[in-house]
Amino acid sequence: MIPKISLTASVLALLTAVHAESRLSDYIQPFVGTQGEGNTFPGPSAPFGMMQISPDTDPITWATASGYEYTDPSIMGFSMTHLSGTGIPELGDFLFIPQTGEPKLNPGPKDKPDEGYRSRFSHDQESAEAGYYQVKLLDSGVNAEMTAGERAGILKFTFPAGKSSILTDLSHFLTGDRFKMIWSQLRVEDDSTITGMHLVDGWARERQMYFAAKFSRPFDSYKAYSGGSEVKYDSYKTYRFRSSHEVFGPDLRFLAEYETKQDEVIMVKIGISPVSKENAMANLEGEVPAWDFDGLKEKTKSAWDKELEKLQLVEGSEADKQTFYTALYHCFMAPTLYQDANGEYRGLDREVHKAEGFNNHTVFSLWDTFRATHPLFCLIQPERNVDMINSMLAHYDQSADGMLPIWSLQSGETWCMIGYHSVPVIVDAMVKGLEGFDKEHAYEAVMATATHPEYDGIAAYEELGYVPFDLENESVSKTLEYAYDDYCVARMAELFGRKEDQARFEKRAASYKNLYDSETGLMRGKDSKGQWREPFNPHEYVHMGDFTEGTSWQYTWHVQQDVEGLAELMGGKEAFVSKLDQLFTFHDDETNDMEDVQGRMGEYWHGNEPAHHVLYMYGEVGQPWKGQEKIRHILATQYGNKPNALTGNDDCGQMSAWYLFSSLGFYPMCPGSDDYVFGSPAIEHAVMDLGDGHKLDIKAENQSAENVYIQSVEVNGKPWTSVRLPYDEIKGGGTIVYQMGPKPSKWAADS
Amino acid sequence: MIPKISLTASVLALLTAVHAESRLSDYIQPFVGTQGEGNTFPGPSAPFGMMQISPDTDPITWATASGYEYTDPSIMGFSMTHLSGTGIPELGDFLFIPQTGEPKLNPGPKDKPDEGYRSRFSHDQESAEAGYYQVKLLDSGVNAEMTAGERAGILKFTFPAGKSSILTDLSHFLTGDRFKMIWSQLRVEDDSTITGMHLVDGWARERQMYFAAKFSRPFDSYKAYSGGSEVKYDSYKTYRFRSSHEVFGPDLRFLAEYETKQDEVIMVKIGISPVSKENAMANLEGEVPAWDFDGLKEKTKSAWDKELEKLQLVEGSEADKQTFYTALYHCFMAPTLYQDANGEYRGLDREVHKAEGFNNHTVFSLWDTFRATHPLFCLIQPERNVDMINSMLAHYDQSADGMLPIWSLQSGETWCMIGYHSVPVIVDAMVKGLEGFDKEHAYEAVMATATHPEYDGIAAYEELGYVPFDLENESVSKTLEYAYDDYCVARMAELFGRKEDQARFEKRAASYKNLYDSETGLMRGKDSKGQWREPFNPHEYVHMGDFTEGTSWQYTWHVQQDVEGLAELMGGKEAFVSKLDQLFTFHDDETNDMEDVQGRMGEYWHGNEPAHHVLYMYGEVGQPWKGQEKIRHILATQYGNKPNALTGNDDCGQMSAWYLFSSLGFYPMCPGSDDYVFGSPAIEHAVMDLGDGHKLDIKAENQSAENVYIQSVEVNGKPWTSVRLPYDEIKGGGTIVYQMGPKPSKWAADS
Repeated sequence: MIPKISLTASVLALLTAVHAESRLSDYIQPFVGTQGEGNTFPGPSAPFGMMQISPDTDPITWATASGYEYTDPSIMGFSMTHLSGTGIPELGDFLFIPQTGEPKLNPGPKDKPDEGYRSRFSHDQESAEAGYYQVKLLDSGVNAEMTAGERAGILKFTFPAGKSSILTDLSHFLTGDRFKMIWSQLRVEDDSTITGMHLVDGWARERQMYFAAKFSRPFDSYKAYSGGSEVKYDSYKTYRFRSSHEVFGPDLRFLAEYETKQDEVIMVKIGISPVSKENAMANLEGEVPAWDFDGLKEKTKSAWDKELEKLQLVEGSEADKQTFYTALYHCFMAPTLYQDANGEYRGLDREVHKAEGFNNHTVFSLWDTFRATHPLFCLIQPERNVDMINSMLAHYDQSADGMLPIWSLQSGETWCMIGYHSVPVIVDAMVKGLEGFDKEHAYEAVMATATHPEYDGIAAYEELGYVPFDLENESVSKTLEYAYDDYCVARMAELFGRKEDQARFEKRAASYKNLYDSETGLMRGKDSKGQWREPFNPHEYVHMGDFTEGTSWQYTWHVQQDVEGLAELMGGKEAFVSKLDQLFTFHDDETNDMEDVQGRMGEYWHGNEPAHHVLYMYGEVGQPWKGQEKIRHILATQYGNKPNALTGNDDCGQMSAWYLFSSLGFYPMCPGSDDYVFGSPAIEHAVMDLGDGHKLDIKAENQSAENVYIQSVEVNGKPWTSVRLPYDEIKGGGTIVYQMGPKPSKWAADS
Repeated sequence: MIPKISLTASVLALLTAVHAESRLSDYIQPFVGTQGEGNTFPGPSAPFGMMQISPDTDPITWATASGYEYTDPSIMGFSMTHLSGTGIPELGDFLFIPQTGEPKLNPGPKDKPDEGYRSRFSHDQESAEAGYYQVKLLDSGVNAEMTAGERAGILKFTFPAGKSSILTDLSHFLTGDRFKMIWSQLRVEDDSTITGMHLVDGWARERQMYFAAKFSRPFDSYKAYSGGSEVKYDSYKTYRFRSSHEVFGPDLRFLAEYETKQDEVIMVKIGISPVSKENAMANLEGEVPAWDFDGLKEKTKSAWDKELEKLQLVEGSEADKQTFYTALYHCFMAPTLYQDANGEYRGLDREVHKAEGFNNHTVFSLWDTFRATHPLFCLIQPERNVDMINSMLAHYDQSADGMLPIWSLQSGETWCMIGYHSVPVIVDAMVKGLEGFDKEHAYEAVMATATHPEYDGIAAYEELGYVPFDLENESVSKTLEYAYDDYCVARMAELFGRKEDQARFEKRAASYKNLYDSETGLMRGKDSKGQWREPFNPHEYVHMGDFTEGTSWQYTWHVQQDVEGLAELMGGKEAFVSKLDQLFTFHDDETNDMEDVQGRMGEYWHGNEPAHHVLYMYGEVGQPWKGQEKIRHILATQYGNKPNALTGNDDCGQMSAWYLFSSLGFYPMCPGSDDYVFGSPAIEHAVMDLGDGHKLDIKAENQSAENVYIQSVEVNGKPWTSVRLPYDEIKGGGTIVYQMGPKPSKWAADS
């Protein structure tokens, strides 16, 4: 008999060995998307974590909304929160900067790092993996490492010998060109602990963030600064007493000073909270009780392993796996947790709430993520998707406007983009049978949002059947997106058996027809008198014109809910295909104001979301092979495992979710419907874990870079000739087997 | 047999009739102190209430720190919070302004009310009583009435017929010349409810105040403004959607619009909270559930009746009673309650705390109120005084500096004035036997405060025996006040039997001797090398010089704890008296920078607090009659029942507390000691209710305006020949009977 303890140890050793060989998290390449338009960040974050520690290289430019641009020459420091893939900079709370020599208080210009606390860095001395980022700051010689848990993390600085310091810049955040630091607090709690808060008038007006930071070594000395001056009592300058232990104002810094030995390590543990300093400290102490950098790093890495198991690429090159798992990593970056360990969070009414029965989340980039990210969550993150829906319902309850989120960020609503795309997220979850939210309450919220009398021309839309351009900008895009959202509302009404609502919203769902101009065969603005927009250049993008980040040619296809109806308007399926073909061949010389809308094929711009369902329309109108070749082209050319691999903003995972679905060979062309639509798989073998032991095994036989055309499909062992894949067919797991070939086939052409 | 119901009704009718005849609250004259230096406010407040609704006439000048100056020609509106008698303006949160015709958004200049929302008013059409204020706004014709409970109140506006409105100006507060509105929120909750918050960088950095307001009539329409512009979604101006239900920014307004009938009444119920909008609403709904203006008014008036019963002037003219009870009213204005109905408040660390086992208070004007206000509370507000001490201890616990309050305001410390006068408040309560606070904790807090290594030169003071003027401004005043406070610390150490601490602080209590310049016979600055200040003009006040709001001649007497020791330094009691006499005869032509230090007799300035114990020193050195005549002169000339009756800032009740004690014939010359010192009573008959059925009955026989000299005293029936009155002698109640006469007597001359 072997003693139990030895057995356990042996098994553990074995498991560790196996684990060490095959950690999915090792495929994560955090630099993917950090160069160019991707706007991702390289620093560590736990899956859906509230904290994202990452280096900031630029707080202003819209092209660097995550704070970090791979080609920037210098790093400002390391801040605690970041957005993944957005087109607008925000967050970047609480910048920590290790320095040597005479400390500097301001960053200085990007290209002249010597003028401030910025430091040069080299990608040769920089590394990142899941839960970990490291960079050597070349100017100071400090090696900076960092890891993060859900609400707290650790900065680990290795200093050279001499005069060293760690600056905390509370005035820093990713301001973009218009946001403002309103106010902040800093409190020196003891010889190695500080806490603080700042209040930001940012993308969503008024958000507060608190922090608590413990330093592994007591300060030799410290200084607190306000507006660049040290805050200290001086009887003859300040007159009355002034505390140097607590400082208030819009422009604060804290400097911890040390005399360090060569290679001396000083760590800073930091917890954050949207509610209070006390909660930030509790988050810190709960999650990072010890000075165990490697332990926290391993915990977060293991969390990533676990999450990545939900969608595994069984066969594939190292590069393929890196691309695939990094896409999954980016999908699991947002919406982020937004509540403290005790359940408290700051709600949309800016009051403190306690989440009861769910985990509150924020960062709802819904104009993007309703398309493929939330549908992916329905399959492999159902519990979190329900948490997110409950968070949306809490938002509705707290909303002064009585609306579900449009694009919500922490305790605020940015009102970014158009439509009311909480609706497809909720309806899709209902259609897919997700449980755990109050459906009557959801119905109320959906109806209130979709009929809001003040929001973006809804009243005129309901009355006229379209949003008129003389009363409302982006009128065509709004009409088209409302019509799609209304299809979802109608589906929800159907599920509730509310026939009157169903009829009302089915009618609204057909509103797209009212803006179809049969003369040009395109969607076109119409005023409240029924007159078409004149002049009309369907290839032109006009800021605050009739279309949202796009042209008529791009938006004309925004009818996910009724491809057949659109084809009918265009004169039938052949005419539809012929028109759609032109989208990929039109040459545009004159694009303006579109800097973050990249990834073009003709006028098709994969880099922005209105395009994402378009290639799947080919299948719906009987010519799936036309979509297949283009999908495979995009998968091969607009994604990858390199920093510059993403051709558009990752938009909180939407670009990546498109990649994942499309790689598997099907896509949620119309969330809220029962079906996915087949495209062309790029994988050889992948397995999706649907929970409860249900696995969907997906294989593509005779797969190659040239064999982009589906020849036949078997679903659960049955020959499958429809371009549509119903959710019911796969929800209990099963198999999909594709036969691929180098030439277009007539597979599913009649479906 | 009379049916029970009739009996009850009869008794009630009888009681009401009796009550109506003899309500103490009817003597309260809220206008006392509103003209000139008194800096009181005329609006309604419950005793020690968190809310003080009052009209504001000027937000800036230091001479109008309460917001209202009786001689100002126009009223801006009515705000929710006010300080009583301070020298620095602050509070004035949330101004409500009824208007007719075209609404104005800004107040306009004081003397040109037509340029803004200000209105002319006339004292003929203005009235105030306990819990009630009324004014006719002459420009709009609106009659404005208001009443307040502890945390909520009602505004009642009677409009003429036509276009009317009620503006809420969230940007308004009493800014003085340097404070700033940082940020605010406004939320339209429904068609008759708004909530909001503002964040003020004020006297004590960063304080937040929330409000909830319900209007008795739904708005016909409303507008929200930010920076003077209406906040409203306009597709072509604002681009993306903008809520008109919630607004953020530093400069907000809300306008409720109505078409009113002649004499239509619209009321606004308002609750406030330092914690949240939710708490403000709960405070409002808890305290003002109905639209019962008269009910709330009566409730507050009754609360005043009850408080005034604690010190009754049994005999006296109507004017005397008005002066007396108004002084008591002003004493019971602060420190104010600072916690919501659920016990939550925002602590000194700006975090939300829950008061457990006490009611949290704020507005600790301790440099003033340690002298007579808190000693009065020891006698007639012992429970509230214990609440206040517990509030000070909570402040200590929350302090980043580990100190008891110096001059605390809501969630902040203003660091106003000098010394550490929480100490005498706590020690006096201990000496007087008050129970209900943790004495060990208090000891720790007192020691930490009195030995703080960074605060105002304490370190040098302990080392050198005085604060040196080359290292610290106001060095002489600081030395003298520290020495007195240290006497209290020593007494506390004695009570704890901590002999080492006692010896250390007894030594510090004698520090005043180190700054006594025997050449001039006055207190004089000394530098760290031991050199006297040169040149030295003992009559001159120098801002940031060696004295605090005073001259050497005024501060030399600041040795409450050891009059005998000071007399000895001066060459004995005769020399002391001779010197003290000169204080009252010196003529000063050159006073500067002293605008709020009024009430002079020679160089004696009763209008500022360092003078308050001085007249009682005559008794301590054997010539009580010299003090008696002057005390009576001040009682007769520097107080009264008229708006201009107060000659100095009431300073949260300290001026008034001096009046009350002095009227009764004794004064807490040295709080923290066992004894009061007799002066000269101005009353004929008064009764102090010490609680638990203990009453102190005080009579002055042969009393008149000329008979200002005590001939003899009986305490509890015993002839009393000492100038000192021990607390032990009166704490169980009893009697004091003075015999008065027109000529100085040798009574107590040998004590």
